[in-house]
Amino acid sequence: MNVFIIGVGLIGGSLAIDIKAAFDEVCIYGIDQNEQHLNKALELGVIDHKASLKESKNADIVIIAIPVDATVRLISEVLDIVPDDCLVFDVGSTKQKLCEAVSTHSKRRNYLAAHPIAGTEFSGPEAAVANLYRGKTNIICEVEKTAFKLQERGMEVFSRLGMRIRYMDAISHDKHIAYVSHLSHISSFMLGKTVIEKEKNERDIFDMAGSGFASTVRLAKSSPAMWTPIFMHNKENVIETLQEYIANLTQFKELIEKDNFKKVYKEMENTNHIKSILKGIS
Amino acid sequence: MNVFIIGVGLIGGSLAIDIKAAFDEVCIYGIDQNEQHLNKALELGVIDHKASLKESKNADIVIIAIPVDATVRLISEVLDIVPDDCLVFDVGSTKQKLCEAVSTHSKRRNYLAAHPIAGTEFSGPEAAVANLYRGKTNIICEVEKTAFKLQERGMEVFSRLGMRIRYMDAISHDKHIAYVSHLSHISSFMLGKTVIEKEKNERDIFDMAGSGFASTVRLAKSSPAMWTPIFMHNKENVIETLQEYIANLTQFKELIEKDNFKKVYKEMENTNHIKSILKGIS
Repeated sequence: MNVFIIGVGLIGGSLAIDIKAAFDEVCIYGIDQNEQHLNKALELGVIDHKASLKESKNADIVIIAIPVDATVRLISEVLDIVPDDCLVFDVGSTKQKLCEAVSTHSKRRNYLAAHPIAGTEFSGPEAAVANLYRGKTNIICEVEKTAFKLQERGMEVFSRLGMRIRYMDAISHDKHIAYVSHLSHISSFMLGKTVIEKEKNERDIFDMAGSGFASTVRLAKSSPAMWTPIFMHNKENVIETLQEYIANLTQFKELIEKDNFKKVYKEMENTNHIKSILKGIS
Repeated sequence: MNVFIIGVGLIGGSLAIDIKAAFDEVCIYGIDQNEQHLNKALELGVIDHKASLKESKNADIVIIAIPVDATVRLISEVLDIVPDDCLVFDVGSTKQKLCEAVSTHSKRRNYLAAHPIAGTEFSGPEAAVANLYRGKTNIICEVEKTAFKLQERGMEVFSRLGMRIRYMDAISHDKHIAYVSHLSHISSFMLGKTVIEKEKNERDIFDMAGSGFASTVRLAKSSPAMWTPIFMHNKENVIETLQEYIANLTQFKELIEKDNFKKVYKEMENTNHIKSILKGIS
């Protein structure tokens, strides 16, 4: 099985490692516009060969693991090149613009829209790790538009990598993922910014930071190259989440200003049941 | 050595466990207005005996580990009861109001204002764990106001528990801790609130949440009984941090609204160096 991975960073590289381990006769070809990343991935054994896009005419599976705007620009070209029985799937964090971009392509049925909810705050081929996807949710959008045989091939990969599958339409995906993923990245980046701005001349202060701050600000280490296009693609939903988040923060601030600490308590108590909601996620 | 711990929850209980392990002849007395907590702490072996406040007249050390408003109400009474050579320290997250409350007490020199930066999002005696304080920072405020002999006794405890000491005045402590701790609790609570409000009728959605969301919202599991008094005591500083945080979020939202994604990228890139700042905290 020839698997071409476009983008050999954290996400693509981790897929390469797991696919290599999960299938007997598989050859992993890496494609990346960053030649250094490609060489690093080869050196680390994450990929078997370096390749160019046009070689994907021999692919059984092509995985696109690059920023979502680059995926939208590239997807038609990839579908043009690959053979008729090739599965092409992406792993991007937004799905609507991508599903729109391929909707009228003659090879639409070769494409599967996927979003494995997995990652770390690190990036590049050095960040690739085994078992990143085990036990994680993989959201598949508009599955009915993918050829049945190729759906099966995709599911075989996802299953061997240990992922749970959830089906969803692309519009719902983008709306909900704005709440449970995109907003928390922005809240974390802006928390980091607020504290750095204030304390930039007093680096000792970060000695005062505990594991709570570290946990809350962890996502502020994420890659701007990956996240800028996500916010661009999911602009309307992200703005909506930010409006609601800012409104809640403002209301909380006003409760403190008005010494309404009974309500401050209540607000926190009401949110405490996130405990039971989050059970099983870590 | 007789150590009385007022408040046998996560913080007090964890101190009890470590002090018990670090000193040869030590007897831990637990005081708690919650009789169930006290019985549980005894049952778990976190404390050796249940006690009442007036028995602390035989104490070598009294540790106050209850919400900060309760500490302010209780501290004078504790100082009145304890013998002249007893060290009293608290472990609360705000220090200014407490230092003010004891400033004119005749036994001011028996008191040491401490804030070990350690904890988890859980609470109660069942949440008490060994080695919670190892490698953590302990901030001591206005150390010069504590009797030298009693400073030494405190340092011996903190040292055996593996804590690093930082000295700071109470006003600076409260200002900086608002940024590196109090703000991240509010950002987390309000993130949890925003997502729960939106998704309350679609519990399946939390299947979409990954480790990033879990990490960012972790502090929203924290105890309202502990955190409400902290925000009350540190009202002015907390309001300031919230104003700045809300301003940064609003500006980021406006950049997205205006399609200024170059600046969106820049904002995230500038915040990325939180990586190097946070090195060593986890």
